[in-house]
Amino acid sequence: TPENIRNVSKRKLCDTVIQLAQTHKPKPDPNGLVFGTVFTDHMLTIEWSLEEGWQKPHIQPFGNLSIHPGCSALHYAVQLFEGMKAYRGPDNKVRLFRSMINMKRMLKSAHRACLPSFDCAELLECIRKLVEVDQDWVPHSDSASLYIRPTFLGTEPTLGVKKPNKALLFVILSPVGSYFSMGAKPVSLWADSKYIRAWRGGTGDCKMGGNYGASIYAQYEAVDYGCQQVLWLYGDDHQITEVGTMNLFLYWINEKGEEELATPPLDGIILPGVTRQSILELARKWGEFKVSERYLTMADLRQALEENRVREMFGSGTACVVSPVDRILYQGENLHIPCEGSLPPLASRLLKELTDIQYGQTPSDWSCIV
Amino acid sequence: TPENIRNVSKRKLCDTVIQLAQTHKPKPDPNGLVFGTVFTDHMLTIEWSLEEGWQKPHIQPFGNLSIHPGCSALHYAVQLFEGMKAYRGPDNKVRLFRSMINMKRMLKSAHRACLPSFDCAELLECIRKLVEVDQDWVPHSDSASLYIRPTFLGTEPTLGVKKPNKALLFVILSPVGSYFSMGAKPVSLWADSKYIRAWRGGTGDCKMGGNYGASIYAQYEAVDYGCQQVLWLYGDDHQITEVGTMNLFLYWINEKGEEELATPPLDGIILPGVTRQSILELARKWGEFKVSERYLTMADLRQALEENRVREMFGSGTACVVSPVDRILYQGENLHIPCEGSLPPLASRLLKELTDIQYGQTPSDWSCIV
Repeated sequence: TPENIRNVSKRKLCDTVIQLAQTHKPKPDPNGLVFGTVFTDHMLTIEWSLEEGWQKPHIQPFGNLSIHPGCSALHYAVQLFEGMKAYRGPDNKVRLFRSMINMKRMLKSAHRACLPSFDCAELLECIRKLVEVDQDWVPHSDSASLYIRPTFLGTEPTLGVKKPNKALLFVILSPVGSYFSMGAKPVSLWADSKYIRAWRGGTGDCKMGGNYGASIYAQYEAVDYGCQQVLWLYGDDHQITEVGTMNLFLYWINEKGEEELATPPLDGIILPGVTRQSILELARKWGEFKVSERYLTMADLRQALEENRVREMFGSGTACVVSPVDRILYQGENLHIPCEGSLPPLASRLLKELTDIQYGQTPSDWSCIV
Repeated sequence: TPENIRNVSKRKLCDTVIQLAQTHKPKPDPNGLVFGTVFTDHMLTIEWSLEEGWQKPHIQPFGNLSIHPGCSALHYAVQLFEGMKAYRGPDNKVRLFRSMINMKRMLKSAHRACLPSFDCAELLECIRKLVEVDQDWVPHSDSASLYIRPTFLGTEPTLGVKKPNKALLFVILSPVGSYFSMGAKPVSLWADSKYIRAWRGGTGDCKMGGNYGASIYAQYEAVDYGCQQVLWLYGDDHQITEVGTMNLFLYWINEKGEEELATPPLDGIILPGVTRQSILELARKWGEFKVSERYLTMADLRQALEENRVREMFGSGTACVVSPVDRILYQGENLHIPCEGSLPPLASRLLKELTDIQYGQTPSDWSCIV
């Protein structure tokens, strides 16, 4: 529980070093912002070494990092990140949303990347302190927010491909506008098996940098084909896995005639998204239709479209909450996905229920005051 | 040809800025060195931006890089590297080995990583100048060398997953000892399909950082199983692909009774190694046995071992040239690979022929004086 997290942390983190910035940047209008382009006045850095373990956390003025040119994060992508947000409610209180899930996923990514373990509650408390220091940067808005980007790097300064003996965990903050500030814009997808995002035995279920850098090329090919994002397929049967950097949901009447909200299962190639998990839990709580983690193939989708069984398809992620899909280019054919009113009913309902929790308008233990 | 390279480059690179180090580090005994732990006095840095293109190359004192904490190389592994060596011959001249192949591979990796193009000949000339500045660091040795590590990073300082608008190419140098300074040590391999190094539609044929960071975890699992490196398998038929960070060769009597040197084909999941290519070309020039780029499965290998048709198996790479394999742990069984005298005849012959070219003892257009 959030109470426990606070208690554990306060005992251990009494020695966080805080050095406040002497100057403060002007705060931008969040509605005009491009995602991740403006950063706040402070950042959190915590160093680790094999000999000395974790050092004191430092909250310090935002600025460049001094990095050895042999650093393993630069040569071998020994690196991972997380993404979460702080939201300011109408009560002027700042809240985090299910942030312990991010901490645990970060720990899992660290294990896979051969980076050291950390105490999730302690790190969350450090991040809470950072957000507190920069709390004026959390937009006064019911749709903008403060994006929180924890990053974890191997800083081993030698060229052997091995577990790093040094590491740096840092957190930066960026105010971001509403994803839907200019109304919902359904996205078009390029579905092709030419590029594969992740594969079994790889790192697709962890938030490691390499997963993202490898995806950019395909994104531009999607644009060349007149689409906005990539629908990532897998296997000879063209399983639908993720969309762009989001998880994917299909709301349909399935092959058995059941009303179903479906998303691919966490079988090693799917990122376990916090929004994904929250959508599944909300919809299961409603109990109004079947909610499934199951395989979906392009053949399943195409047949359902022919038989008018598809109601909605949308991506899910921290940035947008939900992002409706209205078209998929697959094997030279445009598949049109129903997308009533740009933000169709289920996506719209999920967006409202989740943002009401995030901004503190619906009381919930998913939300925790900073 | 090397002459052409020089001519093209000298025209364009007249404005390389050289700032010499004020102090010089002591040069270590290369025989005691752990790979990639000691760096020379200088480094090369070249910045690029979308607006201004490539900036002047700088040869400057070796030192830390100042990197924006939102840098795309740190978050999304928009990064790649190369590995090559400079060798000092008995004539005291310093040579590079087929370095234009590295430049072209680097350009291919840059394309895949959505990093900007560059002129291969120009970059090679910059690297030549850097090696010239630090030429005293090239060991006086017939087995040690100066390892050259070009690195290319996206330095876009924003968090969108996209083609970077800024980039940094840098090159560092590290004196390295002989791989076989204490005699050849055959390696044992853990062959398991639990981890997959690369897959079709991914980045396994490019030297992108993400390929390497994702491999470290498996390497430690191999050690837990009492083996030294991972034999990377692919597909349901357990194709043999690479070993650790090296290409792989099998020298055997194949299923048709032919004497054959075989390595997996460049089908998208294999790194096109310079040593791999050189071994294939040398062996084809000899014309003494069949030389094939072909699929090899664990079943093929096991059957050949049962029928005493395997002569040698070895990895190939810039660090070692060749690295013999004497044991593979596969499905709970130890497969023993013939490994006569620790460095068996074919591996030994290839090592000698290649190092004789690299150190200038055999004249060859594969070798180019700095």
